Amino acid sequence: MNVAGTPYRTVWREGGVVYLIDQIALPHTFRILPHPDHRATARAISSMVVRGAGAIGATAGYAMAQAALEAPEDNFLGYVECAATTIRATRPTAQNLFYAVERVRAAILRRLPQVEEARRAAEQEAEWIANDDADSCRAIGEHGAPLMVRRDGGPGTVRVSTHCNAGWLAFVDWGSALSPVYTHFRRGGDVFVFVDETRPRGQGANLTAWELQQEGVPLALIADCATGHFLSRGEIDLVIVGSDRIASNGDVANKIGTYTRAVIAKSLGIPFYVAAPTSTIDPACARGELIPIEERGQDEVLYAWGQLDTGERGRVLVTAPGVCARNPAFDVTPASLVTGIITEVGVVPASPEGIRTALARKATQ
Amino acid sequence: MNVAGTPYRTVWREGGVVYLIDQIALPHTFRILPHPDHRATARAISSMVVRGAGAIGATAGYAMAQAALEAPEDNFLGYVECAATTIRATRPTAQNLFYAVERVRAAILRRLPQVEEARRAAEQEAEWIANDDADSCRAIGEHGAPLMVRRDGGPGTVRVSTHCNAGWLAFVDWGSALSPVYTHFRRGGDVFVFVDETRPRGQGANLTAWELQQEGVPLALIADCATGHFLSRGEIDLVIVGSDRIASNGDVANKIGTYTRAVIAKSLGIPFYVAAPTSTIDPACARGELIPIEERGQDEVLYAWGQLDTGERGRVLVTAPGVCARNPAFDVTPASLVTGIITEVGVVPASPEGIRTALARKATQ
Repeated sequence: MNVAGTPYRTVWREGGVVYLIDQIALPHTFRILPHPDHRATARAISSMVVRGAGAIGATAGYAMAQAALEAPEDNFLGYVECAATTIRATRPTAQNLFYAVERVRAAILRRLPQVEEARRAAEQEAEWIANDDADSCRAIGEHGAPLMVRRDGGPGTVRVSTHCNAGWLAFVDWGSALSPVYTHFRRGGDVFVFVDETRPRGQGANLTAWELQQEGVPLALIADCATGHFLSRGEIDLVIVGSDRIASNGDVANKIGTYTRAVIAKSLGIPFYVAAPTSTIDPACARGELIPIEERGQDEVLYAWGQLDTGERGRVLVTAPGVCARNPAFDVTPASLVTGIITEVGVVPASPEGIRTALARKATQ
Repeated sequence: MNVAGTPYRTVWREGGVVYLIDQIALPHTFRILPHPDHRATARAISSMVVRGAGAIGATAGYAMAQAALEAPEDNFLGYVECAATTIRATRPTAQNLFYAVERVRAAILRRLPQVEEARRAAEQEAEWIANDDADSCRAIGEHGAPLMVRRDGGPGTVRVSTHCNAGWLAFVDWGSALSPVYTHFRRGGDVFVFVDETRPRGQGANLTAWELQQEGVPLALIADCATGHFLSRGEIDLVIVGSDRIASNGDVANKIGTYTRAVIAKSLGIPFYVAAPTSTIDPACARGELIPIEERGQDEVLYAWGQLDTGERGRVLVTAPGVCARNPAFDVTPASLVTGIITEVGVVPASPEGIRTALARKATQ
């Protein structure tokens, strides 16, 4: 998508170098960081220079390709296996990371002992992973764009609420929740996005607001407390969020705060969509309550981060010294509150049948 | 209530000087500011050194008493009327402010032309207003304490959720939503409070967390996004919030985010109480949708305030430069979502009958 009018992906590779948009520096500084070897790329994953399921997966695939290019002929497989271990350890709960590492590793193993062929296969497989992520997200936009309609059925601005960042920065391109917004907007649609700040880490304020702004989509940043009010006043036509994991019954794990918005939307009869590639579905997870909820460090709640008046990045302690915090990072939204799941193979109901349909379509694609 | 073991009120008067806890400096600095004349006290109201309905009312009453003490004999009424105008203009939407100014003004007028008697009457009336606020809040605690029970009916910690600051800092003493918590706790009750940060102004993080900490009540600060999650996981037994205005049908206007918590609590069958003195009821307001919702400045959403790493107070821009924000300060919770209203004359249903009952009891008190 566009940054100051120039199209970018979140991650790409040129020869042995992997380039990443530095998401820690956003939105106050836009910069591209080069990563000259697989170890540097792995560090970028663990330090959250890159975040978001799709973007992490693609970056891990590229890191494996780097490892294949770096590996000496006389210890090729040993070097690659060691790199795989390093890359897997960067974000031990990210499903896409393991998927990408295994795909590239398998492509390498299929060509050995021909080392040069294995290197070409690793490069191709990594590129395929990144392109597949971008293609899936673009398809989500195609399937989701027709849902961008006003509740009153009339013409005029379609007003969308979103939470956290499920935009292109979380993937290679397009994004999940924001892809239908971008597609609708590029087709000339009239759209306005209410962006939740998404405390404690503020991904809505930092990333979603910046993404939309760069693409020219009108938006308003709102406090997380205000979403329910705008929903109740008829100022929002639909809610679209992303997902970190979808259980096989259609329950959805996503950023903390998602559940609340789903309950309000349901109580008011406002559509609540989850947009996610089918890779987000965990067929091994029967229902949402089985998904472990990560509780992160207290500092995220005790402090707020941003740009100081001096122009530097900094933080403020938002409470009294000595106060303790609880910090669950995700919550689970029951399938019954979800109007539909927008995937790259179409919109399906949030139900066991819907999930089976999506997986079956993907398998035969 | 206690600050580092010493009991305080938010506002008090000694002769011609009005003392206020500086609520702008909290929670990082605790300091008492003396206000030597009614103009200084009025400025403290407009600059939000003091905030909260009850605390503003008491401060306005004291400012009127100061004016009566300052007024020259040869222009006594003229000086007092001019002071009343100044004080009324400080926070033009604060009902308690007008109520207090009118009460002290009426007490003065009843004694004129005896100037010395009028001065004594002004002092007494101002003291009565402050004491009445503290007494009402203490009574709210008495009526509310029996509601502090676990949902499972068993022994163990009662886990309370609250939003914004409806503690003693918003009144003269005790508070509204927190008064039942303090009363229960001082009686040896086992209680734990989940404190919402309450972006954008962060009154939960700044004031409620500090208040509870000073009184020794265990608490956890949580992001506004996390309340629904803890409610859904059975980790909260009841919600208590304050109110800025209650309509005569029981609809409740309160800090933005209140409505959301009420919807979630209702959907889960968790009690949702509003605690407020009967002075919060506006008999002239038929229902909540008639209450105008103040939309405040964008900067509150675009920035977060707190203590910098240098120890000074400062702010961070939490989004990209140029992003716009919407900032509704209040929302309206329909009476149907409120389990009960805790007043100084007892707990009443959030209904036209309940409101009439409360007002009738107050009138005959």
